[in-house]
Amino acid sequence: MTARALSTPGRLNLRSVGSFHIGGQRKTLQGLPVEQVRLAVGAAARSVDPNGSYVSGQMYVQYYLQQQALSPWPIVLWHGGGMTGANWESTPDGRPGWLQRLLESGLDVYVCDAVERGRAGWSRWPDIYQHPPLFRTMEEGWDMFRIGPALTHGLKEAKAYAGQQFPTEAFEAFAAQWVPRWADHEAITLQAYEALLEKIGPCVLIAHSQGGGLALSMATRRPDLLKAVVAIEPSGAPQELPQGPACPAYLMVWGDHVHEHPVWRKYRARVDEHQQQLSAIGAQAETLDLPQRGIAGNSHFPMLDRNSDQVLDGILHWLTPLTLQPTQELMK
Amino acid sequence: MTARALSTPGRLNLRSVGSFHIGGQRKTLQGLPVEQVRLAVGAAARSVDPNGSYVSGQMYVQYYLQQQALSPWPIVLWHGGGMTGANWESTPDGRPGWLQRLLESGLDVYVCDAVERGRAGWSRWPDIYQHPPLFRTMEEGWDMFRIGPALTHGLKEAKAYAGQQFPTEAFEAFAAQWVPRWADHEAITLQAYEALLEKIGPCVLIAHSQGGGLALSMATRRPDLLKAVVAIEPSGAPQELPQGPACPAYLMVWGDHVHEHPVWRKYRARVDEHQQQLSAIGAQAETLDLPQRGIAGNSHFPMLDRNSDQVLDGILHWLTPLTLQPTQELMK
Repeated sequence: MTARALSTPGRLNLRSVGSFHIGGQRKTLQGLPVEQVRLAVGAAARSVDPNGSYVSGQMYVQYYLQQQALSPWPIVLWHGGGMTGANWESTPDGRPGWLQRLLESGLDVYVCDAVERGRAGWSRWPDIYQHPPLFRTMEEGWDMFRIGPALTHGLKEAKAYAGQQFPTEAFEAFAAQWVPRWADHEAITLQAYEALLEKIGPCVLIAHSQGGGLALSMATRRPDLLKAVVAIEPSGAPQELPQGPACPAYLMVWGDHVHEHPVWRKYRARVDEHQQQLSAIGAQAETLDLPQRGIAGNSHFPMLDRNSDQVLDGILHWLTPLTLQPTQELMK
Repeated sequence: MTARALSTPGRLNLRSVGSFHIGGQRKTLQGLPVEQVRLAVGAAARSVDPNGSYVSGQMYVQYYLQQQALSPWPIVLWHGGGMTGANWESTPDGRPGWLQRLLESGLDVYVCDAVERGRAGWSRWPDIYQHPPLFRTMEEGWDMFRIGPALTHGLKEAKAYAGQQFPTEAFEAFAAQWVPRWADHEAITLQAYEALLEKIGPCVLIAHSQGGGLALSMATRRPDLLKAVVAIEPSGAPQELPQGPACPAYLMVWGDHVHEHPVWRKYRARVDEHQQQLSAIGAQAETLDLPQRGIAGNSHFPMLDRNSDQVLDGILHWLTPLTLQPTQELMK
């Protein structure tokens, strides 16, 4: 029996909703030209001096705390590349997201926007960041998120895979939630994530895509702060392995059409190798391959797919013995 | 007796937490060069083609719905320039924000990130947006947010006004939540905001600074969708006035040191003039001038100041007869 199975849809017994920024440092710029800009509706133009101090490298965290949490370990949600914490809220076709389900289940939840994504904010370049950002097209998303075969003639040709679980009618609504990203910020991103875990850990990390790769890196770096890592379609894995007595339990989750996709096939091969290395050092490291379990058609975003509740049930089923307090009669 | 006075701190009886993006349209780019970029930790470099389709001009909305809402009109929160909805969550020194207090009070709440702010995402320039963004320095914020006198020698010289209510020890934590902004996006921002109100209105709008100016514009444009507008230190007002039989009630809220500041003095004069014009056409348009009511020391961000709960009480006291259902015995 899992927490989710015992939850009441539409009933959240929270005590607190709030947020904070964490990580980052002060940067100072000088020698840039002063501009004249009209900043607000109906307002006159005024000088804007870009020279001075900024905070850069911080991340954003929104927390939802229960009246009585079912587990001593909160769930921490890390999104993937070009995304924000909005990924975990509602689905693009308006169904309840994993955030709602986790809260209904009585778990404390922290939803993160990584450095330079969403509410974390971002910095000038080339003054503070080195490079310009990357913007993802809908065409690239259609392919990379494995909604359907790669497009050679634009979105008009888009045809989803047969049995696709992603709500394709809401693909444009989904594209509305993508944000720009930088390609070379793993180090500053991990630094802020580590500061977060030092503040709130140990915890259970559910992380997706680029966030999944970062989560596997963090598990190597700070195994003491992670009870379990659920890496959903991680797009990479570190070369190193966790050291020391503590080691989180690992679950890698994969959707459909991974082996048919030239990029995802490679990413998965690397993650499978990492999992084998983890198992070899005695870590609990498992894979939830949805098609192998008879659950077909999942995209790169199982938390947004039509069967999102079913996939979360599978994850909570795996997590329950690890994360719920053994003394809790409710869960026996 | 207001909703807030009857609330229980630390008890939220919600049924649903979720989010959506609204507004915006599809834009297509072509003729840009293809790049080679390594996108994720441990991953190999791959081609990124910026040519294709994007969604631009959308905004982000997070909603918190009560088991039983105290009012038929939800509260909608619009942040100011260079900010996000995070303004309404916790204060920078970690106290509960107005979001928590409004939820404890039993009100449905929608927290917005305006177009190109926070989780709304933002677009390439000069391909989609015309201009580069603006970044606010901590020095400018210190002055414009009226924390203390303008700085001529940088932050080291920063000295807060005597009796300052802003938690100055958390000024850098506050700066961590600022995001870049564009100066010429009022039209697309109002377009998305109008789409939001068409979806959820009529409602009570609490809006700050640039958002306050936009709220006054929206009240002129769509008075039918607004029950009341609480404009907190609005940085502008439209030249036009609401037409037709329906007209929201207005409350303008001002902190301290407004008349001593060259920019805010002008903004306030314009808003005061707008309020007089509203009164002249028979609208309920009032000002809550905090220092005049004996509440001294508020900055440009009363929702973050040490007396944030007291200021919200004042607003809810004004709102209660307008927004709560008259049949509700609880509120009498």
